[in-house]
Amino acid sequence: MEALRDSLLAGDERALARAISLVEAGSDAGQELLRGLRDRTGRAAVVGITGSPGAGKSTLTDALIAVLREHGRRVGVVAIDPTSPFSGGAILGDRIRMTRWHSDPGVFIRSMATRGHLGGLAAATLQVVALLDAVGFDHVLIETVGVGQSEVDVVQAADTTVVVLTPGQGDGVQAFKAGIMEIADVFCINKYDLPGADRLRREVAAALELGDHDAHTWFPPIVGTVAAKGEGVATLLEKVEEHLAHLGAEGRAASHRRRVRAEVTATLGEQVRRALAEREAEAVDRVLSGAATPGAVVRELLASLAAHGRADGHAEER
Amino acid sequence: MEALRDSLLAGDERALARAISLVEAGSDAGQELLRGLRDRTGRAAVVGITGSPGAGKSTLTDALIAVLREHGRRVGVVAIDPTSPFSGGAILGDRIRMTRWHSDPGVFIRSMATRGHLGGLAAATLQVVALLDAVGFDHVLIETVGVGQSEVDVVQAADTTVVVLTPGQGDGVQAFKAGIMEIADVFCINKYDLPGADRLRREVAAALELGDHDAHTWFPPIVGTVAAKGEGVATLLEKVEEHLAHLGAEGRAASHRRRVRAEVTATLGEQVRRALAEREAEAVDRVLSGAATPGAVVRELLASLAAHGRADGHAEER
Repeated sequence: MEALRDSLLAGDERALARAISLVEAGSDAGQELLRGLRDRTGRAAVVGITGSPGAGKSTLTDALIAVLREHGRRVGVVAIDPTSPFSGGAILGDRIRMTRWHSDPGVFIRSMATRGHLGGLAAATLQVVALLDAVGFDHVLIETVGVGQSEVDVVQAADTTVVVLTPGQGDGVQAFKAGIMEIADVFCINKYDLPGADRLRREVAAALELGDHDAHTWFPPIVGTVAAKGEGVATLLEKVEEHLAHLGAEGRAASHRRRVRAEVTATLGEQVRRALAEREAEAVDRVLSGAATPGAVVRELLASLAAHGRADGHAEER
Repeated sequence: MEALRDSLLAGDERALARAISLVEAGSDAGQELLRGLRDRTGRAAVVGITGSPGAGKSTLTDALIAVLREHGRRVGVVAIDPTSPFSGGAILGDRIRMTRWHSDPGVFIRSMATRGHLGGLAAATLQVVALLDAVGFDHVLIETVGVGQSEVDVVQAADTTVVVLTPGQGDGVQAFKAGIMEIADVFCINKYDLPGADRLRREVAAALELGDHDAHTWFPPIVGTVAAKGEGVATLLEKVEEHLAHLGAEGRAASHRRRVRAEVTATLGEQVRRALAEREAEAVDRVLSGAATPGAVVRELLASLAAHGRADGHAEER
C-alpha cells in the first residue's frame, strides 16, 4: 500500500489505474488509500459536463482536453455517460479519436462502469475525482448524461458545471425536462452550425431572464461551439475559467466540501436504498397488517443497517 | 384510546379532528391508533391534485367536492399546498367559499401545516390519508403544489393523479419544469376560457405523443375546465372514475401498497436527513482531514440513528 502510494505520487500511470480500480470498487484498501491522500485534495478545478445523449459531450470533452493541453494543463477525465465512447458505449470513430491521448502522460481518462460499485456509482465517481485531484491533475472533467438524480448530484458537486445543449432535440424543453437548466454555470450550445441554434440560444436566454439575478450573482453565459471542428471551444474554456475566478478560493473550498458531502450522502443513500429494497415488501406487509408502525419498521431497518455496518468495520480491522 | 377509536368509527367529526392531530404530529399515540386501523384501509379512492400555484387547484377541489356530493359520496380532503386556502395561505373569498362544507358531515377538509411533523410532512400526509380511508370516506383528495420531491412522492402515491395546468403561465414548459408531466393520469386544463387554452392542450397532447404507449397502457386524457363556474368538472370526475376502473382491484391494491411504501420511505428519509443535517459538517471535516473514510462516517451515523431509534422504542414501552 505504501509502495502504491509512492508510485502514485511519483506520477506512475499504471499505479494510478490500479488505485482507481481499488477506489472505484469501494474496497477497504481503496478507501484507506484515498483517506491517506485527502489532505492533497481541493486543488484541481473540477468541471462537470452534462447534457442529453447525442449533444456531443464526448467530442466537446475531447476538444476541451486539446485546449487545456495547449495551455500546459494536466487533465483527468471521469466519464459516467453510458452513451460516451469513454464509457464504452459508442462509435468506433469516437474511440479512435480519443486514443490520441493514450501516449500523453498529461491526460488520464477513466470511464466508470455503471455497475459494481459497493458504495454506488455517485460516491465512486466522486472518489475517483478526489484521487485524480490528489495526484495533481490541474483540471478534472466529469462527463455525464444529465438524467437521474445521482448523476445530477455528481455534476452539481463540480466547481463549474457546463450544460451542453444542441439544436433540434426538442430544444430547450429537453433541458427543462432533464432538470439540468438550474445547475448550469455555463451553457454550451454545441453543433452551433445546425439549424435552430439561434432560436435555442434565445430560448435559453429567455429562460435565464426568468430567474432571480442580482449584481453579485453569476449570470450563466451561453457559448456556441462546433466541437467537432474545435470552434468556440477556447471561448468556452475562457468562460469556465471566468466562473472559476468568480468562485475564488472561498467558493472553490465550498465546492470541495460539497463534493465530500455528496460522497457521504451518496454512500449513506446507497446503503439505505439497498437495505430498503431488500426488506421493503416485508416492511409494507407488517405496516398494512397492523403488526407494526412505519416508525417501528424504520427503527428495525436502521438497527440492522448499523449492525451490518459494525460487522463491516470489524472485518476491516482484521 | 379505545374510546377515541370507537367515536372515530361511529363517525364523530371531533374525534376525527383529534385523531388526525395525533397522527399528524407523529406522536406514539397517533401511530398506535393508526396501526389498529390499518386493516380498514385500502377502500377509499385516493385522488391527487397537483399543479403550479395559481392553477386554481383549490377552486377545482371545491368543485369536485360538489360533484362528488351530488353522487352521494363522502369526501375527505388533505391539502398540503401552501398557497391553498385550505392550508391557510390565501384569499378571504376562497376561505368563505370553502366554509360551505362545514355543516356537511359528508365532507372533511384538513390542511396540513408545513412544519412540526416528527416524521416529516410526506409521511404525515400519507398517514392522514390512511386515517380518512380507514374511517370510511369514499374519496380522499390530496391537494398539493407539484414542487419538491416529497410532494411529488405523495401525489404519486394516489390511485389517480390529476395534473392541473392553466393557460398563459409559460404553458407546458411549467409542467415539464415541475417534473409533474410524467405523473399525470388525467390532465386538467383549468381556466379553459382564457386565451391560449387550445394551444396548451395541443402542447400537452404533443408531449404525450412522444411517450411510449400501447393498447394496455392508460393514455392520459386532457379535460378543459372552468372550475369557478363548475364547467367541465363532471367530465373531469368521469375521467378520474374511468382511470380508477382501469386500475381495477389489483391496480388499486398496488397503489395502496405504494402509499404504505412511500410512508416508510419518507419516514426513513426524514430520519436520515435530520441525522445527516446535524452531523454533516463534522462528517465532512473528518473525511477531508483524512480522519475517516466516508464509509466509516456513514456507519457511525447509522449506529447513532439506530441507538436513537432504540431509545424511542424503549420510551414507547413504558
